[in-house]
Amino acid sequence: MAVAFLIVSLIAGIISIGMAMYFRMLVLKEDPGNEKMVTVAGYIEDGAKSYIKVQYKVLSIFVGALFFVILFIPSPLEPSERFAVWFNWEQALAYAIGSAGSMVAGYLGLYVGVKANTRAAQACTISTKAGFDVAFFGGAVMGLAVVGVALIGVSILYWIFGTPLIILGFSFGASSIALFMKCGGGIFTKTADVGADLVGKSEYNLPEDDPRNPATIADNVGDNVGDIAGMGSDLFDSYVASIVAAMMLAASIALITNIDITLDPILRATLVVTPVVLCGVGLIASLIGIFIIKYRKAENPGKALNNGTYYATLIFASIAALFTWILTLDLNEEGALLLWRVYFAVLIGLASGIVMGFTSDYFTREDKKPTKNIANAAKEGHAVVILSGFAYGLLSVVPPTVGIIVAMAVSYLLAGVFGVAMAAVGMLAIVGTIVSNDAFGPIVDNARAIAEQGELGDDVIRTADHLDSAGNTAKAITKGFAIGAANLTVFALLFSFAEESGINDLPDGINLLNIGVLIGAFIGVVVPALFSALLVLAVQRNAAKMVDEIRRQFEENPKILTGEEPADFKKTIDIATKGSLRELIIPSIISITVPIGVGILFGVASLAAFLAGAILSGFVFAVFMSNSGGAWDNAKKWIEDGNLGGKGTEVHKAAITGDTVGDPFKDTAGPSINTLLVVMSLTASMFMGLILLFNGGLGLITF
Amino acid sequence: MAVAFLIVSLIAGIISIGMAMYFRMLVLKEDPGNEKMVTVAGYIEDGAKSYIKVQYKVLSIFVGALFFVILFIPSPLEPSERFAVWFNWEQALAYAIGSAGSMVAGYLGLYVGVKANTRAAQACTISTKAGFDVAFFGGAVMGLAVVGVALIGVSILYWIFGTPLIILGFSFGASSIALFMKCGGGIFTKTADVGADLVGKSEYNLPEDDPRNPATIADNVGDNVGDIAGMGSDLFDSYVASIVAAMMLAASIALITNIDITLDPILRATLVVTPVVLCGVGLIASLIGIFIIKYRKAENPGKALNNGTYYATLIFASIAALFTWILTLDLNEEGALLLWRVYFAVLIGLASGIVMGFTSDYFTREDKKPTKNIANAAKEGHAVVILSGFAYGLLSVVPPTVGIIVAMAVSYLLAGVFGVAMAAVGMLAIVGTIVSNDAFGPIVDNARAIAEQGELGDDVIRTADHLDSAGNTAKAITKGFAIGAANLTVFALLFSFAEESGINDLPDGINLLNIGVLIGAFIGVVVPALFSALLVLAVQRNAAKMVDEIRRQFEENPKILTGEEPADFKKTIDIATKGSLRELIIPSIISITVPIGVGILFGVASLAAFLAGAILSGFVFAVFMSNSGGAWDNAKKWIEDGNLGGKGTEVHKAAITGDTVGDPFKDTAGPSINTLLVVMSLTASMFMGLILLFNGGLGLITF
Repeated sequence: MAVAFLIVSLIAGIISIGMAMYFRMLVLKEDPGNEKMVTVAGYIEDGAKSYIKVQYKVLSIFVGALFFVILFIPSPLEPSERFAVWFNWEQALAYAIGSAGSMVAGYLGLYVGVKANTRAAQACTISTKAGFDVAFFGGAVMGLAVVGVALIGVSILYWIFGTPLIILGFSFGASSIALFMKCGGGIFTKTADVGADLVGKSEYNLPEDDPRNPATIADNVGDNVGDIAGMGSDLFDSYVASIVAAMMLAASIALITNIDITLDPILRATLVVTPVVLCGVGLIASLIGIFIIKYRKAENPGKALNNGTYYATLIFASIAALFTWILTLDLNEEGALLLWRVYFAVLIGLASGIVMGFTSDYFTREDKKPTKNIANAAKEGHAVVILSGFAYGLLSVVPPTVGIIVAMAVSYLLAGVFGVAMAAVGMLAIVGTIVSNDAFGPIVDNARAIAEQGELGDDVIRTADHLDSAGNTAKAITKGFAIGAANLTVFALLFSFAEESGINDLPDGINLLNIGVLIGAFIGVVVPALFSALLVLAVQRNAAKMVDEIRRQFEENPKILTGEEPADFKKTIDIATKGSLRELIIPSIISITVPIGVGILFGVASLAAFLAGAILSGFVFAVFMSNSGGAWDNAKKWIEDGNLGGKGTEVHKAAITGDTVGDPFKDTAGPSINTLLVVMSLTASMFMGLILLFNGGLGLITF
Repeated sequence: MAVAFLIVSLIAGIISIGMAMYFRMLVLKEDPGNEKMVTVAGYIEDGAKSYIKVQYKVLSIFVGALFFVILFIPSPLEPSERFAVWFNWEQALAYAIGSAGSMVAGYLGLYVGVKANTRAAQACTISTKAGFDVAFFGGAVMGLAVVGVALIGVSILYWIFGTPLIILGFSFGASSIALFMKCGGGIFTKTADVGADLVGKSEYNLPEDDPRNPATIADNVGDNVGDIAGMGSDLFDSYVASIVAAMMLAASIALITNIDITLDPILRATLVVTPVVLCGVGLIASLIGIFIIKYRKAENPGKALNNGTYYATLIFASIAALFTWILTLDLNEEGALLLWRVYFAVLIGLASGIVMGFTSDYFTREDKKPTKNIANAAKEGHAVVILSGFAYGLLSVVPPTVGIIVAMAVSYLLAGVFGVAMAAVGMLAIVGTIVSNDAFGPIVDNARAIAEQGELGDDVIRTADHLDSAGNTAKAITKGFAIGAANLTVFALLFSFAEESGINDLPDGINLLNIGVLIGAFIGVVVPALFSALLVLAVQRNAAKMVDEIRRQFEENPKILTGEEPADFKKTIDIATKGSLRELIIPSIISITVPIGVGILFGVASLAAFLAGAILSGFVFAVFMSNSGGAWDNAKKWIEDGNLGGKGTEVHKAAITGDTVGDPFKDTAGPSINTLLVVMSLTASMFMGLILLFNGGLGLITF
């Protein structure tokens, strides 16, 4: 039967983990470079590990507590019977596994990331290609680990329990970890980065990555924990959530376009496993793409990464067609036709993901008009560069909005809400490639710093710079992709929530003319703004502490500045670690309690409107903040390349202001909103049993 | 019959115009001061008039064109018959009258404003109270003119045509003018302000309002056209719209809570006139408040203004109770009870308006925590002060959200959607006081500049400063009030649109689970972001031109800097005028075509969701931008008062950056969003006949 097809995704997952291990080995056997490099890399590794240790300790307590909460919420499996028992062990177990899986994948990626940086720097002494390979393999470990763990988890859980509702628990586990990793990592990395820039660059005129700056190591640690572990767990979370949403819809909806699924159990069973199977196919395509990148001669590392994405896309489209055909063999003509429509919905999603990636690239690339205009605005001073970047960031919301709307409309016309869910799955199918390319960025960023500190000479640094710039482009594209994918995923989760909670059976669905529903939407629209505010404030507050600490070190020990004694890196890492954990508390409480509160007070329809409002406004904030941050960063780089007078001028100083403002926008608040949306959507579904206890889901206050 | 009660509002309107004329006379007979002051004031007056002349010329063409468009859209009066005729002269005429009324009120306010500034400055040589009185009467002319024109227009039109649908045309006229006046004025004022600051303050170290700065006069003109004419037309627009929305709902809904209105024509007739009658009462209350402010001895001008608001509120509550009682005399017991519930909905609205005003005051006041924290953030440099203000601005969205939600929920429970509409009416009932207080601000701001340029000495300048600071506080409160009132108003317009368009008769209302509806909401959420981006870019682009012009004047004629020759003020005014008109084109096209486009493509339910999305996200952007701008402004002032090192320090420079970024936030984009929302909501209602032609209102693309 259809479920047997899960063998595809299970095998793909296992191969993926195997390849991750193989790449890890390849990276580890490379030359780690000279003594200085090894020392610096050791500092970074120790810092990353000490952060992860503290973070995981706190997370374990959190996961443990939530495990018991989940255990005692009404189980969604057999609601009527379970209400009495309230022993929801299946979801609780799945939750624990999902959390653990996310933590393991994050650790694996981070572990290799901090080993790959110095080795990539050393490889840059041989050739660009050699440096590229080490960094790329290092990044691929994260990409493959994420996808492998996710697919194995989903396949096995579905095999054992036979219902996507259990996988919902798995997904919730992945998401709650992602929220911590993404926000925490984001706060950490920008606390260090902003702090290092404010004192080191502006007050003491130290260059970027100068080893005398006490926050340099923390900054490098931040790249790893924020961009490797954070982004990895974020995409892990979106990936699993998109699969779950599609599976849940396939398992529960009655009609897709005009086809009655209830009449054809084989069709339904096939549809339920289709997302998992296609993700398995996507993983195989990603693997092939990775090998093509390795064995093709690429002069331009940026182009090589992009080509990998294109190849993975094309290969995925072909193999997915093959597997769609195989899946149709069991179906009647009507079902087969539907499956082909689903296939095209998947392609639409993938295509729109790529378009979104490239529009975000356009708005942040230094050779395009927006970034150049922002750089030119720096001529008028600090304020004008801010206004310009702010405005272009908001403008950049329009093209991806059109992209999402077209993808949603077409995929809906093809296969109803299931089509929309499958478009999200399509966007995330090649996530192996996407995460690999993304994790490449921080590795080469670190490699550049280590090359500088290891005194490998200008040529090597230039090579590393070249790789770094490719990494930045890849990161911009990845972010656009991640936001788009998360957006479609949470829409799918919303439809699935509406299906499961019985809103679809209410006479008027989520009717905005109902005051309770309107209030839900209102709160939903405000939450991403509040969330962004809290994260930006968190960075600002922590960076101020970091600034004080750096100043203190320079003042108390003048030998740090002369280079005679090393700075106290541990202290700065400690500030970033503790600060990020402390500042996480309120945002994470909000993300879980607000949806539950809205549901209990105003009912499930209001909660659904809350989610819709949050998704829409969250999309605006995520795109705006990511893109204005990226554009400020590149405007500064463009000036540093010698344009408009280059480094050290007033124009450059204004551009640095833009970049610093953009730092928490693009690396803390912006990308964390994705995770917030997924967590809130999953919270709604997970705690539905609880919410339905209050006035049958109509809420305590009815209008 | 009930309509006879309109005599109250008509008389109140006439008295109001009479009082405005009387105050105008009082102001004009004051001493305009020494020759220098008269010269400067003359420059400002000429500049304002030349701007208004160009603006009104363009507006006349626009109004003329739209007049013909409205003439040929299907009339809402008797749709079935009119579709054939399409000669909608009643609405077109009302539209022309509304436009003309808004222009006249704006002109009157502006005319007195530019006369009052120099007289207020001169009066400051006598005493604070004398200066206060002149400025306050000058501002009251605008407040009273706005309310008078609006009430007379609404009363007469309803008397003649007997249907609120015609008043809808009047309201649309007021709104389309407001959009031009508010956005245009906002762009003008900040082009001049930012330009003047960037070159004058930062490059040449000229003090604020220095007459050698070529943009100083343009800056003062901007205060008048942006803050007097712009804010006045904005509140005129919200005021009329709130009345129309409530009247339209009263005329069309079948049920209020559980009372069937269709059974009781007297009750319906009474409900339809209630909003107008209560606004008449509010106007009388405002007039009494104005006299109390005049005749009570006030040591503190800020307190005097606030006290005026409190008195007006209390007086309104009392007289409104009296009139509610009179209105109930014709009604049966059930109807009378309903009217009392409506009365309490009005009070709830008013109370929440005041609460909103004061929370926005809290978030922007220099002696409160947010602004102090922002000022302290300036110690870490330009970037950190931006991050802090940005975050606090976003945080400040939360309290007014709660306020609006509570007002909406309670007023709905009291009297259904009509209750929500009446809460909006309640918020705006004392708009006479609000506009008067608001227009006080730019007059004293100008007075301060003229006192400086007229060399009236430090004591007088200090007195004027004192008044200026009271004006700033009043402005912050007004803005919070205006945003809240506009927000509830557009909700009421949304309900009325739903009622008129037949969405309420659709099986599922505005169901967000329908993809077309979701797409509408998506576009709606994005539009305020796009609109803000365009306005901020407009200011940034124009300010850059202004900067070039100022630099050119200083370079080509060094005698300007030495004070030997006057700068070319006309040229800078010309740049601001032309720039603001050019940059208006795209935002105004968006505000009218996007709602119509969404309606035609996806149908009326999608259009309603579009409006809801725009209202919610517009609220977030309006509050965030207004408050962060206000907080940056006051953080800078707090530092200039001698805190954290005071003027000329690096901290002060960073705070100036914050202030400059905040300028277009708080005075261009933020407050324009209100008008955008009203215009879009009214566009939906006005063009409903057109939209219903496409697939019966289901739209060309159905899902």
